[in-house]
Amino acid sequence: MTEVVDRASSAHQPSGREDAAIRTNDSGTSDSGTSGSGKRAADPVVDVAALGEQLLGKWAHIRHQARQIAGHPDVRKIEGLHHTEHRARVFEQLKFLVDNNAVHRAFPTRLGGSDDHGGNVAGFEELVTADPSLQIKAGVQWGLFGSAVMHLGTREHHDKWLPGIMSLAIPGCFAMTETGHGSDVASIATTATYDEANQEFVINTPFRAAWKDYIGNAANDGLAAVVFAQLVTKNINHGVHAFYVELRDPTTKEFLPGIGGEDDGIKGGLNGIDNGRLHFTDVRIPRTNLLNRYGDVAVDGTYSSTIESPGRRFFTMLGTLVQGRVSLDGAAVAASKVALKTAIQYATERRQFNASSPTDEEVLLDYQRHQRRLFTRLATTYAASFAHEQLLQKFDDVFSGAHDTDADRQDLETLAAALKPLSTWHALDTLQECREACGGAGFLIENRFASLRADLDVYVTFEGDNTVLLQLVAKRLLADYAKEFRNADFGVLARYVVDQAAGVALHRTGLRQVAQFVADTGSVQKAALALRDEEGQRTLLTDRVQSMVAEVGAALKGANKLPQHQAAALFNQHQHELIEAAQAHAELLQWEAFTEALAEVSDEGTKRVLTWLRDLFGLSLIEKHLSWYLMNGRLSMQRGRTVGTYINRLLVKIRPHALDLVDAFGYGPEHLRAAIATGAEASRQDEARTHFRKERASGTAPADEKSLLALKASKSR
Amino acid sequence: MTEVVDRASSAHQPSGREDAAIRTNDSGTSDSGTSGSGKRAADPVVDVAALGEQLLGKWAHIRHQARQIAGHPDVRKIEGLHHTEHRARVFEQLKFLVDNNAVHRAFPTRLGGSDDHGGNVAGFEELVTADPSLQIKAGVQWGLFGSAVMHLGTREHHDKWLPGIMSLAIPGCFAMTETGHGSDVASIATTATYDEANQEFVINTPFRAAWKDYIGNAANDGLAAVVFAQLVTKNINHGVHAFYVELRDPTTKEFLPGIGGEDDGIKGGLNGIDNGRLHFTDVRIPRTNLLNRYGDVAVDGTYSSTIESPGRRFFTMLGTLVQGRVSLDGAAVAASKVALKTAIQYATERRQFNASSPTDEEVLLDYQRHQRRLFTRLATTYAASFAHEQLLQKFDDVFSGAHDTDADRQDLETLAAALKPLSTWHALDTLQECREACGGAGFLIENRFASLRADLDVYVTFEGDNTVLLQLVAKRLLADYAKEFRNADFGVLARYVVDQAAGVALHRTGLRQVAQFVADTGSVQKAALALRDEEGQRTLLTDRVQSMVAEVGAALKGANKLPQHQAAALFNQHQHELIEAAQAHAELLQWEAFTEALAEVSDEGTKRVLTWLRDLFGLSLIEKHLSWYLMNGRLSMQRGRTVGTYINRLLVKIRPHALDLVDAFGYGPEHLRAAIATGAEASRQDEARTHFRKERASGTAPADEKSLLALKASKSR
Repeated sequence: MTEVVDRASSAHQPSGREDAAIRTNDSGTSDSGTSGSGKRAADPVVDVAALGEQLLGKWAHIRHQARQIAGHPDVRKIEGLHHTEHRARVFEQLKFLVDNNAVHRAFPTRLGGSDDHGGNVAGFEELVTADPSLQIKAGVQWGLFGSAVMHLGTREHHDKWLPGIMSLAIPGCFAMTETGHGSDVASIATTATYDEANQEFVINTPFRAAWKDYIGNAANDGLAAVVFAQLVTKNINHGVHAFYVELRDPTTKEFLPGIGGEDDGIKGGLNGIDNGRLHFTDVRIPRTNLLNRYGDVAVDGTYSSTIESPGRRFFTMLGTLVQGRVSLDGAAVAASKVALKTAIQYATERRQFNASSPTDEEVLLDYQRHQRRLFTRLATTYAASFAHEQLLQKFDDVFSGAHDTDADRQDLETLAAALKPLSTWHALDTLQECREACGGAGFLIENRFASLRADLDVYVTFEGDNTVLLQLVAKRLLADYAKEFRNADFGVLARYVVDQAAGVALHRTGLRQVAQFVADTGSVQKAALALRDEEGQRTLLTDRVQSMVAEVGAALKGANKLPQHQAAALFNQHQHELIEAAQAHAELLQWEAFTEALAEVSDEGTKRVLTWLRDLFGLSLIEKHLSWYLMNGRLSMQRGRTVGTYINRLLVKIRPHALDLVDAFGYGPEHLRAAIATGAEASRQDEARTHFRKERASGTAPADEKSLLALKASKSR
Repeated sequence: MTEVVDRASSAHQPSGREDAAIRTNDSGTSDSGTSGSGKRAADPVVDVAALGEQLLGKWAHIRHQARQIAGHPDVRKIEGLHHTEHRARVFEQLKFLVDNNAVHRAFPTRLGGSDDHGGNVAGFEELVTADPSLQIKAGVQWGLFGSAVMHLGTREHHDKWLPGIMSLAIPGCFAMTETGHGSDVASIATTATYDEANQEFVINTPFRAAWKDYIGNAANDGLAAVVFAQLVTKNINHGVHAFYVELRDPTTKEFLPGIGGEDDGIKGGLNGIDNGRLHFTDVRIPRTNLLNRYGDVAVDGTYSSTIESPGRRFFTMLGTLVQGRVSLDGAAVAASKVALKTAIQYATERRQFNASSPTDEEVLLDYQRHQRRLFTRLATTYAASFAHEQLLQKFDDVFSGAHDTDADRQDLETLAAALKPLSTWHALDTLQECREACGGAGFLIENRFASLRADLDVYVTFEGDNTVLLQLVAKRLLADYAKEFRNADFGVLARYVVDQAAGVALHRTGLRQVAQFVADTGSVQKAALALRDEEGQRTLLTDRVQSMVAEVGAALKGANKLPQHQAAALFNQHQHELIEAAQAHAELLQWEAFTEALAEVSDEGTKRVLTWLRDLFGLSLIEKHLSWYLMNGRLSMQRGRTVGTYINRLLVKIRPHALDLVDAFGYGPEHLRAAIATGAEASRQDEARTHFRKERASGTAPADEKSLLALKASKSR
């Protein structure tokens, strides 16, 4: 392994100093982020402590506690363990969490919890810095298995099982997914057939595709499981319900009769969790093991439910599981923060070329490309962090019962489905970019990027595959769009389409005038003003979402009147656009969250820097989708060309504050645990400089052949 | 771990059948890829065997042999081994390679090799399917350590050490990189000072930053090393040279006196290799251990070299190492092929929804989004494969001496620096997308995506950091550009700039006319013709490279007359653009290679399908950079909007041939070794279908509550 590149040919230029930032900030007082007009802008200085508290959000106190626990040596991931050792260690760590009251906040107060749903998720998210395996294993035990008993079961179930679940006396599984059915939960094939004679349900796995798969705790530790199965009674299938099933003998840890399974083996990450497969052959459980909050079977086999529609009942039951998505969103943001702190710290020390020279001062972070790689991701991380806080508050509103209408629940699910894909993909992208930005050092596990990336990989497909979730969002956007036309006759729709077309023309005209203005004055600077303006960004981002939805909506209008096969084909022809529209919507939500958070910053110096970062986020989104803005007449060619230029200026402005911005994340060395985040690189350079200085001073330094040749050449002239 | 999504809300539509392909192929005989005009187009059918041979390229016979070895159970990666076990296994596997004559092709015939440089790399690349650790460890031993002795040493060195290196009697290191110097090899700080009295070189590591780092074979196995150090004699530093240094006692495996080091520990992947650190304190080696092909020190300490310029001497020595980049390029392509075969195979079997229904037939690969995710990467893989074959032939031309001018070597280095970044990033992207496209199953190590991805991760930063390599390419592009103006006075340059501006206007005019034509006829179809036309794609791709280089070149013109600090700052302000230009250049090279390969396809049916794939590649590039084409007047808004539409049509056309296209890669189950590439999913579904069919036939199937409710509702009306 070696990195070979000739030095002379690489970019090798400084920039990004404070002076450069001031130099390029030639728009003077028009700089956004200042408050009063006429008032001199505050110096751009970040109040790291205050910003840190704002980032911690509503449950700051719980996050502080959770970070203290997550930084404890006993819960740290030890790298390179064999997966069986890793599993054993993580299981022990779960007990540490129990002993430290770290995982019971969501459970009923009467059973030792505190009925605090938002706080519970906030604390859970912070565990990712200790070991993502620990986080997800805790999530399986208390967030899925325990939550299912709590939300789908009733008081009798709570009293009977929650204490054991909370104390880890009953390690358990959440057995929903089957080998043949991932996202399609409604079609799972495991059956629970009621036997009136014995007042028991009989659980059966009809074929290999119906084996429960990828189930955490299934390979080793699970003594029980909440098993999702088709409830059949009186030969009627009432759809998917949840059943409490004992799996293993608590003493021997052997499977109980009728139960079998196998180990999922090594995974791409999260190897501290024993995922596995389960299957059931005539496994009998008491009737009362049906978690019967939303559907029950009487002794005589009569089915009853408070929710008449089987479809609505199914979605209500699944809806209790949104917490998984919410917490993955938060965990992904936390991992991105850890990575950026390490990579940016290192980039303020590391020199790619001439490290030994006393005169050259540029470090990696002074390179434009390096700034682009890291600062755009830093901006997105801030946006995702503020957006997550909104999601978490929404989640708490619903689950605390404060705001718990059907509409609230739908909004929560849509919001989670929108944000979780973006933040989890972003985390993988950020971890990878940070790892690459640190070169060979980034690949060493001692610097953790590769380890975190491997563990977080599956976050993008579990608890809802990201691509499928974005389609849920798209469906909601389309439904909202359709509502406007619920009673519309063809004339109205046609008018709408015409309005749309007129809209495009209007935009074109509007922007053409601006372009003309630019041509007249010759000033690209002024053309950029609207882009760096909050309203300008909002208009561009919002317009794109609305237009994309309207466009697909118009294309799909009438699909419901087509034969199913044709409707499906039509829909599929627009699948890519639908997903793009959903993603645009989620990006807008992130941007709005960042902008709302800005309004809450009281320190003017911080606000100025954070406004640059928000602008960088907004402009990066506009740059990413620039072709859309150009093709649809929202930006002129001339203005389009200013986007990249303005981004480059923002990079220079943000450069002096980059360390403050990652320090505000508030992670200590016990969370970072990266060799290159310790200042080791700077110390090594100091040592090297001292060596060369001494050598020069002593006169023992050898002369350089190159310099001698140059000298000789100049003499011979 | 679970995947929860409501089924009804997800896209759930078939398409992509052959009939759909024909339906949308409404341009009839104007379809590109047909040969004679007037002649009916051949049926689009892939001759898998013939295409497979073409993909194997010039060294097909060696690739066949190498694949046979790579498929052998003894060299397969065993997942989940502790890294010490993995290291031990890989070391044993190296002996297997020796015993099977798999790794000696590049060495001199007189020593048992075959002086076959191209064939050697071709065979080496194929090892990636066995275990990337094995590949890279073999690369360290024979490609770096052995190659350095061969290329930098002279006959005496060859006779003395190559036999032991070839037989693995001397496992060795290539000790170039230092902790403080990755890409900046010229600045390494290890010294080798000649001691005339004893006719020895004394090797020293002056400080911690100068420790050799990330060195394969250093932690355990290396008995010797080629150490790169500043050669000092008569108190003059003649720059970096290579020295053969014994590291460990062959019997005890202990470090020899003056040598120390440590283990780099676990890495993000490639844990079958014992990377480590080395340092030297007054380590004495004989004068004759200097690998003296390009620079020598006489007994009396007089330095001599056949290359007078120290800079040129340095680059000549490093130039012999281009083989690493060439082979990583090929290995990355091979890994992409393995991933795509597995993911596409699975996608032709897996059903996301309604797997149990006998009527719905759509599989994952029928979804538009899934096609987009996989086929665009399939197209890029073909392009990268054909481009690699050209690179490999160029490499062989130079190293065999057939075409070995300075210009040839420079071209080779530029080509390698352009292609290696694209193919290695592409491999990571493809492995990840394939893993996600297979959901939770993709995350299981038994399906290998995550394993390969982890191992290939470092390919993007070692043997030349990708970002730094692209800057090398940019430098070359700028140099070529500057040559046109070598003797240009200001007037000429000004004229050029004016021409550039006129060029933009011209383009705008030209395309505006086309746009007008579209508006007149109302046919988007016709506007797309040029895009799907080979010349149209070439013009767009070439124009972009030329324009970007010219633009940066113009911006940097005169930088060499500025004070160094200012010149550097100016350069840095354009770093991002420079890298983008280099990437555009590399993409064009891939596109040209694909197009040249198309010309060699004799079977018309194959050519038709492959032309669609080439078009998909070209159009994907244009879509990726669409904002540039729009901002710079190369495409009109209207035409820009046709790019996505045409891509979607190509996806439908390619769909029926997707399996053929991945089967042509020629990898067998012994190379894929993925549980989901075996047809297991299809068997499970067959079993499920049989179960439901029997149940319905027997009349024991429970009724569905939903259906009963619907029935009831219709009766009560």
